Amino acid sequence: MADTMKGLKRTHYCGEVTEAGKEVVVGGFVDRIRDKGGVIFIVLRDRTGVVQLLFNDETDRAIFEKASSCKSEYVLMAKGEVRERESKNDKLKTGNVEIFVTDLRTLAKAQTPPFEITNETKVNDELRLKYRYLDLRRAPLQENIIRRHEIARVTREYFYENGFLEIETPMMMKSTPEGARDYLIPSRVHQGKFYALPQSPQIYKQLLMVSGFDRYIQLARCFRDEDLRADRQPEFTQIDLEMSFVDAEDIQGCVEGYISRLFSEVLGVDIPIPLPRLTFADAMNRYGSDKPDTRFGFEIQDITDTVKDIDFVVFKNAIAEGGSVRAINVKNGAATYTRKEIDKLVDHAKGIGAKGLAYIRWADEPNCSFRKFLADGELEKICSAVDAHEGDLVLICADRTKTVLATLGAIRLICAKKLDVIPEDKYNFLWITEMPFFEHDDDNNTWVAAHHPFTMPMEESLEYLDTDPENVRAKAWDLVLNGTELSSGSMRITDFELQQKMFEALGMTDEEIQAKFGFLVDAYRYGAPPHGGMGIGLDRIAMIMCKADSLRDVTAFPKVQNASELMSECPSYVDDESLDVLGISVVKKEDE
Amino acid sequence: MADTMKGLKRTHYCGEVTEAGKEVVVGGFVDRIRDKGGVIFIVLRDRTGVVQLLFNDETDRAIFEKASSCKSEYVLMAKGEVRERESKNDKLKTGNVEIFVTDLRTLAKAQTPPFEITNETKVNDELRLKYRYLDLRRAPLQENIIRRHEIARVTREYFYENGFLEIETPMMMKSTPEGARDYLIPSRVHQGKFYALPQSPQIYKQLLMVSGFDRYIQLARCFRDEDLRADRQPEFTQIDLEMSFVDAEDIQGCVEGYISRLFSEVLGVDIPIPLPRLTFADAMNRYGSDKPDTRFGFEIQDITDTVKDIDFVVFKNAIAEGGSVRAINVKNGAATYTRKEIDKLVDHAKGIGAKGLAYIRWADEPNCSFRKFLADGELEKICSAVDAHEGDLVLICADRTKTVLATLGAIRLICAKKLDVIPEDKYNFLWITEMPFFEHDDDNNTWVAAHHPFTMPMEESLEYLDTDPENVRAKAWDLVLNGTELSSGSMRITDFELQQKMFEALGMTDEEIQAKFGFLVDAYRYGAPPHGGMGIGLDRIAMIMCKADSLRDVTAFPKVQNASELMSECPSYVDDESLDVLGISVVKKEDE
Repeated sequence: MADTMKGLKRTHYCGEVTEAGKEVVVGGFVDRIRDKGGVIFIVLRDRTGVVQLLFNDETDRAIFEKASSCKSEYVLMAKGEVRERESKNDKLKTGNVEIFVTDLRTLAKAQTPPFEITNETKVNDELRLKYRYLDLRRAPLQENIIRRHEIARVTREYFYENGFLEIETPMMMKSTPEGARDYLIPSRVHQGKFYALPQSPQIYKQLLMVSGFDRYIQLARCFRDEDLRADRQPEFTQIDLEMSFVDAEDIQGCVEGYISRLFSEVLGVDIPIPLPRLTFADAMNRYGSDKPDTRFGFEIQDITDTVKDIDFVVFKNAIAEGGSVRAINVKNGAATYTRKEIDKLVDHAKGIGAKGLAYIRWADEPNCSFRKFLADGELEKICSAVDAHEGDLVLICADRTKTVLATLGAIRLICAKKLDVIPEDKYNFLWITEMPFFEHDDDNNTWVAAHHPFTMPMEESLEYLDTDPENVRAKAWDLVLNGTELSSGSMRITDFELQQKMFEALGMTDEEIQAKFGFLVDAYRYGAPPHGGMGIGLDRIAMIMCKADSLRDVTAFPKVQNASELMSECPSYVDDESLDVLGISVVKKEDE
Repeated sequence: MADTMKGLKRTHYCGEVTEAGKEVVVGGFVDRIRDKGGVIFIVLRDRTGVVQLLFNDETDRAIFEKASSCKSEYVLMAKGEVRERESKNDKLKTGNVEIFVTDLRTLAKAQTPPFEITNETKVNDELRLKYRYLDLRRAPLQENIIRRHEIARVTREYFYENGFLEIETPMMMKSTPEGARDYLIPSRVHQGKFYALPQSPQIYKQLLMVSGFDRYIQLARCFRDEDLRADRQPEFTQIDLEMSFVDAEDIQGCVEGYISRLFSEVLGVDIPIPLPRLTFADAMNRYGSDKPDTRFGFEIQDITDTVKDIDFVVFKNAIAEGGSVRAINVKNGAATYTRKEIDKLVDHAKGIGAKGLAYIRWADEPNCSFRKFLADGELEKICSAVDAHEGDLVLICADRTKTVLATLGAIRLICAKKLDVIPEDKYNFLWITEMPFFEHDDDNNTWVAAHHPFTMPMEESLEYLDTDPENVRAKAWDLVLNGTELSSGSMRITDFELQQKMFEALGMTDEEIQAKFGFLVDAYRYGAPPHGGMGIGLDRIAMIMCKADSLRDVTAFPKVQNASELMSECPSYVDDESLDVLGISVVKKEDE
C-alpha cells in the first residue's frame, strides 16, 4: 500500500516555491528524475508549474532510498527546506531554488504512461484521446483549460455587473423541427414520445423576456446532431444573452464592453471600442465574405467601369449579362506567384464556380494574361485603378457578381496565407449589420428565412416584404473576429400582426404556425417588451484566445469527428431491458 | 402596429425611481390602472418593483387618451418628471413619488391573462404551469429566480477565490449501469448505440484529479430517470466539486467556509462554523435518522437498562431478542396529544413496522399505558430517566433496535410539526460522518456498497472487510440542513490493490469490473493524488433559502411529476423520418 499524507498539509503549489529559507510542503507528479549517484533531483509538477526536490548526502537514508525508487508520474508529497540553487535556471519561476526534502511520501505509484507527458508531443491524436486524462497532464492543455475557466469567469462577472441574471433553462425540451437535427431522448413515462436536447435556449430566453426578467445570460450547453467538421463538437457552450427595452445598438454596445473587458483582463490586449461596423452588402463587396478577415488588405475592387470598353470577350460577356469585373491587388505577390502558382489559383477559382481568373503579374514589368486585347494605356489605367505597382499581382474575375465576390473572397484568403501577411497577434473584431432577411432556396425556388422566423425586419425594408424579398434586411447582425463568426444576434418580433405577416411571407399556414411555434406565439399575445439578444460561441472564443488549432484543445473531454469519445468508448450498446422500459427498439446496428 | 421606443432610452428601473425632481424614462408592464375621470394612475411594473405614472389635466391630451386606452399587462415606456406624491405609500420603495408623463409609448398590447398577475394566487398549478411565462411575472417567483442567481453567483465567487477551476464535463456520456436509471440518447452515426445524460459528473471529475487539475468545481446539470416524488425534477443542478491532496476534514472545512459565506451574503444570516458533527451511529441513536432535524429536542433516549426488570412482556421480549427499549420525551405534548391523537401516532408507528407505542401522558398526573405492569416507583424512575415533567408526553418503543430508531425518528418529527416547535428562521447544518460502507441487500442476502465503489473505507475498519462488513465505515459524509440531505461527499480510492480488494469484497469478477469501470480503473494505474469531493444540491439550497415549498418555485421552467412540461407539452411525438435516421423504432405508444 502507498503512503498516506497523514501529518502533512500542503503549504504551497509547486510553482509558488520561489523564496529560499522557508519550510514548505508540496505535492504533485514526478515530471523528471536525475539520479547522479550521490545526488538525486526530482522535478515535481502540479497545475501551477514545477519545482526541484533535492536529495543528497545530507538526506536521511530512508528518504534517499525512497527517492531513488520513484519513477515518472508517481504522485509525491514532500516536506522540506527551500534552498538557493547552485545552478540557477532563469527560464523557470522556481528556477532559483530547490527543496531539501525532510519528509517524502509516495502517495501513488504509476505505470509507465503510453506516451511521455511533455509540452510538445508528436503522439497521434487517437492515442492522446484514448488516454485523455494523461494528455490533460501536459502543461499546454492545462493552460488552455485554465484560460477557458478565466474566460467564463470574466464573462459572468461582466454581465452580472451589468444587471444580467443567469437563469437555467431546461436541457430536456420539446423537439422543434427547425434548424439542425435534434438529439432526441426517449421518454419512459410517455412511451413513444421524445424530449430533445436544446440547439440553443432561444425559445426559453424569449419567454423570459415575456416574463419581464429584462436581462438574461446563461453559459448554456447546446447540442446539434450534425456531421462534424473539424471545428465542431456535438455539444458546445454558448454565451447566451437577451435584453429588453433595447435596440440593436444597445445590445452591440453591451457586447463591445464585454469584448473589451474580456481581452484586457484575460490577455492584457486592448480592443478599441466601438468596434468597426460593416453592412452585409459592404462586407460582400469589399471582402467577398460575410465574415471577412480584416487583418490584411487585398480588398476587392470593382473595375467594371474601367474595363467596360476593353475588347476582351470574357469581360464584355460578364458585363453584358449584368455581372461585373472585379479585382484584388495582392501586394508584393508577384515574386511568390509564378505562372505555376497562378495556375493553381485559377484551378481553385474554377472549383468555386468562376470561369477563370485574369491577372496582371508585375515582376520586372507588368505581365498581363489578356495583354493582346488591350489598347495602349489600358493596362496602365487598370493598374492605376487598383493601385498596382512593381512587385504586385492583380487577380481579376469577371462573372455574375455573386460568383465574382465568392471567388475573389476565397482567393484573397489563400494569397494572404501564402504570403504570410496575416498578423497573428491582431484581434480584428467587426460587426456585420443589415443582414438579408430572406435566403433564396434554389432547389425549391422559394425564399426562406435566413434567421429564425421571430427575427425582426428593418422598418425601412418592410415595404419590400411582398414585392422584393431579396431587398428585405433583418435587424440581425454577426460578430466576426479574424474571419471567424463568433456570434449572431437579432431583435425579435414582438408584435402579433407583424409576426402573422412574416409567417405568411414565408408561406406558412395557421396550422403549421401552431404546430411549430404554438406556445411561443401564444406567449406574445400577453405583451412583450422590445427585446433582442445574441449567442456567442464560448468554445470558439476560447480557441482563439488560446491560439489553439482545434476546439479539442480547449475542451476537457472532446468527441471526435464521428461524435464518439475515444476514452470511454461512448456511445455504447445498452442492454435490452433499458430499451424495453423505454418502449423502443433498435432497428439497425452500426456493425450489421 | 405598436409604438416604437425610438428616441427614448430607459434611464431607471421602476423600483429605482425614488427621488422627485428628475426626468426619467421607465419601461414595464401595466400592473394596475385607476381611472378617476380627470386623473389616471398607471402602476408600472418591472423586475425591480413598481412605480406610479400620473396623467391629469396638465397632461397632453393625446398622451392622456393613450393612457386611458391601456389595459393590464400592456407594455409601456414612459418619459416624465418625477414629482412628490400627494398621498404617500410607505410600504413601497417608490411610494413617495409619481411620474408626470410627457411621452408615452404602447410597445405591446396584451390580451387579458388567464389569471391575474398578483403576489398571492389561488389559481391551480396546472394553469400556472401552462402559462408559466405569465406566472413568472409574479413578484414572488421573480424574487426566487433572482435569489437563485445570487446563490449561484456567490457559489462561484467563493470557490474561484479558493483556487477551484470550473471545468465543463460532457453531457453526452457513456451509460453506466449503476445507480438510478439513465436518460438515453440514440446515436445517429453509431446506430444501435446510445449516449447517456450524466447522473452526475462523478467519473469525469475524478479523471480531472488524475490529470492534476487539483481543484474542480462545476455547477453541473444532472439527470435521473426516476419516478418523481414531490421534491424531485428529472434534471437538477449540482454544485459539484473535487479536491486533491486533501483529507475529509479539508473538504468539509472548505464547504463550511462556503456555507457561511453564502448565507451571510445572500440572506444576511450568520452560520457559525465549524458546523456541528455527528457520526452516523450517533445520529441514528439520538434522532433515528441519518438526516436529523436538530432545530428541536425530543431526542431518542435508551431506557433499556431502566426498564429491564419491569414485568411487561413487550419490553421483556424486545430485550430478550437483542433489541432495545427507547423513548422520546415530547415536551409539553400532553395537552395536544389526547388519547385519540396518541392512537394516530400508534397507527403511524405500526405503519413503519413497530408493534406499537407505549406512552406516559402526564397531564394532571402521569397516565401510563402499561401502568398495571409497573411496581411502585418504577413510573417515577422512567420519568426521571427521560426528564419528564407535568405537561410532557413520553413515547416508548420496544423492538429490534433498527425498528425502534426508525419509528421514534419518524414520530419525533410528526410530534414536532404538530406542536409547531420547529423554528422557521433557524438553519441547522450538520455533518453526518463515518457512514457505513456496506448496506445489506435483504432480497439477495448480500452486502452491497452503500456509496459508489470508489469510496474509500476508513483505515481503522479495513480489518473488518472480509469478516464483518457491517462494521466497515466509509470515508463518506453527508451535509444535512434542517432535516434535509443537501450533499454527500467522500474520499476516493486511489490505490490499485485496495480497489481490487474492495471489488472482491463486493463480489465482482474481473470481467464485471472491466465492463463497468474499465477506463476509470485504467486511469488510476497512472498515479492519482489523494482526492475527494462533494455534490451539493443547488436546487435544494435555493428552495430552502427562498423558503419555497417546492423545487418548482425555484426552477424557471420546471417539469411536473410525470416528467412533462405543461407549457410546451414536452415530451412529444416526433416524425418517423427522425426515428428512421436514428435506426430505432417505437414499440409501444403511451396512448395505445
